[in-house]
Amino acid sequence: MASIAMDSSSSASLLHPPPVVPMKLHAENREKLLKHLREYLNSSSRPLKGFVLLQGGEEQTRYCTDHEDLFRQESYFAYLFGVREPGFYGAIDVDSGKSILFAPRLPAEYAVWMGEIKPLSYFEETYMVSKAYYTDEITQVLNNQYQGSGKPLLFLLHGLNTDSQNFSKPAEFEGIEKFETDLKILHPILAECRVLKSKLELAVIQYANDISSEAHVEVMRKIKPGMKEYQLESIFLHHTYFYGSCRHCSYTCICATGNNSSVLHYGHAAAPNDRTFQDGDMALLDMGAEFCFYGSDITCSYPVNGKFTSNQRLIYNAVLDAHDAVISSMKPGVNWVDMHKLAEKIVLQALKKGSLLVGDVDEMMVERLGSVFMPHGLGHLMGLDTHDVGGYLQGAERPEEPGLSSLRTSRDLLEGMVITVEPGCYFIDALLLPAMESAKTSKFFNGEAIAKFRGFGGVRIESDLYVTADGCLNMTKVPRKIEDIEAVMGGAPWPIKKSMNDYENGGSLHVIN
Amino acid sequence: MASIAMDSSSSASLLHPPPVVPMKLHAENREKLLKHLREYLNSSSRPLKGFVLLQGGEEQTRYCTDHEDLFRQESYFAYLFGVREPGFYGAIDVDSGKSILFAPRLPAEYAVWMGEIKPLSYFEETYMVSKAYYTDEITQVLNNQYQGSGKPLLFLLHGLNTDSQNFSKPAEFEGIEKFETDLKILHPILAECRVLKSKLELAVIQYANDISSEAHVEVMRKIKPGMKEYQLESIFLHHTYFYGSCRHCSYTCICATGNNSSVLHYGHAAAPNDRTFQDGDMALLDMGAEFCFYGSDITCSYPVNGKFTSNQRLIYNAVLDAHDAVISSMKPGVNWVDMHKLAEKIVLQALKKGSLLVGDVDEMMVERLGSVFMPHGLGHLMGLDTHDVGGYLQGAERPEEPGLSSLRTSRDLLEGMVITVEPGCYFIDALLLPAMESAKTSKFFNGEAIAKFRGFGGVRIESDLYVTADGCLNMTKVPRKIEDIEAVMGGAPWPIKKSMNDYENGGSLHVIN
Repeated sequence: MASIAMDSSSSASLLHPPPVVPMKLHAENREKLLKHLREYLNSSSRPLKGFVLLQGGEEQTRYCTDHEDLFRQESYFAYLFGVREPGFYGAIDVDSGKSILFAPRLPAEYAVWMGEIKPLSYFEETYMVSKAYYTDEITQVLNNQYQGSGKPLLFLLHGLNTDSQNFSKPAEFEGIEKFETDLKILHPILAECRVLKSKLELAVIQYANDISSEAHVEVMRKIKPGMKEYQLESIFLHHTYFYGSCRHCSYTCICATGNNSSVLHYGHAAAPNDRTFQDGDMALLDMGAEFCFYGSDITCSYPVNGKFTSNQRLIYNAVLDAHDAVISSMKPGVNWVDMHKLAEKIVLQALKKGSLLVGDVDEMMVERLGSVFMPHGLGHLMGLDTHDVGGYLQGAERPEEPGLSSLRTSRDLLEGMVITVEPGCYFIDALLLPAMESAKTSKFFNGEAIAKFRGFGGVRIESDLYVTADGCLNMTKVPRKIEDIEAVMGGAPWPIKKSMNDYENGGSLHVIN
Repeated sequence: MASIAMDSSSSASLLHPPPVVPMKLHAENREKLLKHLREYLNSSSRPLKGFVLLQGGEEQTRYCTDHEDLFRQESYFAYLFGVREPGFYGAIDVDSGKSILFAPRLPAEYAVWMGEIKPLSYFEETYMVSKAYYTDEITQVLNNQYQGSGKPLLFLLHGLNTDSQNFSKPAEFEGIEKFETDLKILHPILAECRVLKSKLELAVIQYANDISSEAHVEVMRKIKPGMKEYQLESIFLHHTYFYGSCRHCSYTCICATGNNSSVLHYGHAAAPNDRTFQDGDMALLDMGAEFCFYGSDITCSYPVNGKFTSNQRLIYNAVLDAHDAVISSMKPGVNWVDMHKLAEKIVLQALKKGSLLVGDVDEMMVERLGSVFMPHGLGHLMGLDTHDVGGYLQGAERPEEPGLSSLRTSRDLLEGMVITVEPGCYFIDALLLPAMESAKTSKFFNGEAIAKFRGFGGVRIESDLYVTADGCLNMTKVPRKIEDIEAVMGGAPWPIKKSMNDYENGGSLHVIN
């Protein structure tokens, strides 16, 4: 397949029209779960009987009103069944491997207000399941299917999300007392299935990355001093929806300029991307679209006027060197805490070289000085959720040291993981001022040089990486080198190659940049 | 102020930059509530003591994850306080009229992750309240303020939303047992305050209408056979956000083409605007942006190729005549059920004239034939919620007849109401086929003529109307006449005048179209 250059004179997308994701993706996910669940049951000498049962998401209304928020399926349910509509349940027979969807029985007026009432056969075909019934038939159907003795066993989903500290909600339905239920076995096995991506999952994540990369490039081309931060968000959302059919974003866009770029999760309702930015400002744009449930998570940082100053160049290259060094080191078996420390060290070395810091970098590492400039973790697993599940295995403890305690995973890398690499360097008064006064760390700072960076904000460079058998591949395709960014912002073309099919055919991923 | 023509050759907005909404709007809302609450207390010989206390909305995460949905304030709270951030409470002292905001006490790390921790004085100034405290001080502050004897009385918000059939959630906080609470008095008075819009509220709704009208015109200019429905949604969202800073939509966009336009609430997750439309299709586009909490609700219908056929002209003009006749009849005292019937009658007359129906229109009205072609209500109150509160006063009963039972209000119009006028005519098999077979209504149908409209979909024309002292004003400024639509779709300019200031200055609204 030939590489196609993106025409800077046109706003059309080369990725249009968006691909169709085969339901085989979700069928394979079910097979994978079955394999691991059966292995676990065998190894603990339990019978291969019972049903995995998950409850899909429900539509939500806003407060006491009838305003309906746009529905987005619960991620575990999406993983196994790919169902777009609310109100479903899904079951997998551990014995036979058969999959069953339970659809809500809709009232006749649904046809007038909401659309055609689809027959059960539609759901069987669309979602490639063995059989579909109505949700009011769960008890009867599962009892009839069950081949064992006694009450049928249900494996329900109950477990901790280590990012939110919330627990997933096990399925509830009328008649559940007619079943035995197990709340422990399913969650760790299913979460671990999600950690290691299949070829088809990778292809979808790649598309989300491709269209989001394209949209980032579109923003680079249109950004100008005097604009509002939210206008950048709007350009990004429009490009990914209009050309990529991405109706959902992976997360609320962070469009931070000037000093706002030192606020790690800027962009929410209390800090809503509403600043007018000025010549000389840096922008930190953390935006990623979701495609067919799978996300992307990409940050670009650059000056809004398209030309880096020497100070901007210093901080940007510090972060880019950390980003590149981590990517060069990543492969199965490498520990993520070590990668975080590698990134910290490279940033500290660059700040020392740039005369912002003085002294021995190893000593700085001992004092955890890196966390003053990068208080967040180096990166996180990514997939159906932006902060994807499986960051800490059951029983694993979070590191407690500054900076490391923010890590969303401390695991060793495995082939098939998709993980973000997002080092940053920020000038945050709330962290910098205490560190400059602390007895242990004040000696490292060149106060005069640091003073010039007060109000600078920060730089983050974030790409989505796929861990291969012997290294990793960068799925994100945006300009990273300063000369490339300046060229693209000046109108030069930027090539983004269609690569979804590479994964589908089992081929390797071509990386352009 | 001169009227400014919108340049068809440019995608820039004339309304840019968006206006700043003065917090006086919400201060006036509080004064209005106080006036009516005090009148009620006086008339029922109760003391003018106690506090109105409302709890604002909280941030929500998606299922068990840490994915944060973009926060949107609860509408009653937004009405009284205009607060954009989550986690607040607000009180009004019935005695002194003083207003108090209670802000969440944020942890130090908020400054690193979410942004500057604002001092209480910031909230006092930004939201123009008498005083701000922290939410953990509610009990102490209100007890200290209270001048009466015994436990202080709290007027809490508890009442039915007649569109959702849900109840608003009264404020809850630690220490509430130290207060007397009243759950009955506040809700009907506050809901009725929201029904009658102030000049400042009208100005904001007008801006939401202006930018949404402009975005509809932008869609008209860019629509072409072969596009996807969601691409129209994307154009609309981009225009209202990029030029209008509208981050929220009033409701999920309905971008229905072909037969989908007969699905009244098309566009949700199970029918997600994903059809590729073809030459000859009609489009029904129901899209409205929200600006500073206040919404708009606008539907345009037209052929995707820009030229009406005679069949499309017949149905479109039937609906437009109904739309215009209702607007001509609207004024204080007019009953909304009568307006609904007026719209039905005009549509039926047009269908008879077009030979789709035969027989006596008054007889058709008796048999409620109008509801076969327009199963929804003629319109609804609009404001902070798209389906705004106050449609049915306490004790009022909904009409039970077909079509009328869908009405979200049966009230007499009052000066200051903002209400949508949205007649429609749809060819919905689920309603049409039974009516054509029914002993009572089959005689009215010209089966052969009707057959030509199977698959036509439907037409809806929806504008937002402000009821004045002696009539009403149309706040929606899109092309409505067929010749205007065809001209704009062909590239002709369409003037949209800035009119927000007209309300602010107490002047009258200039309507262009």
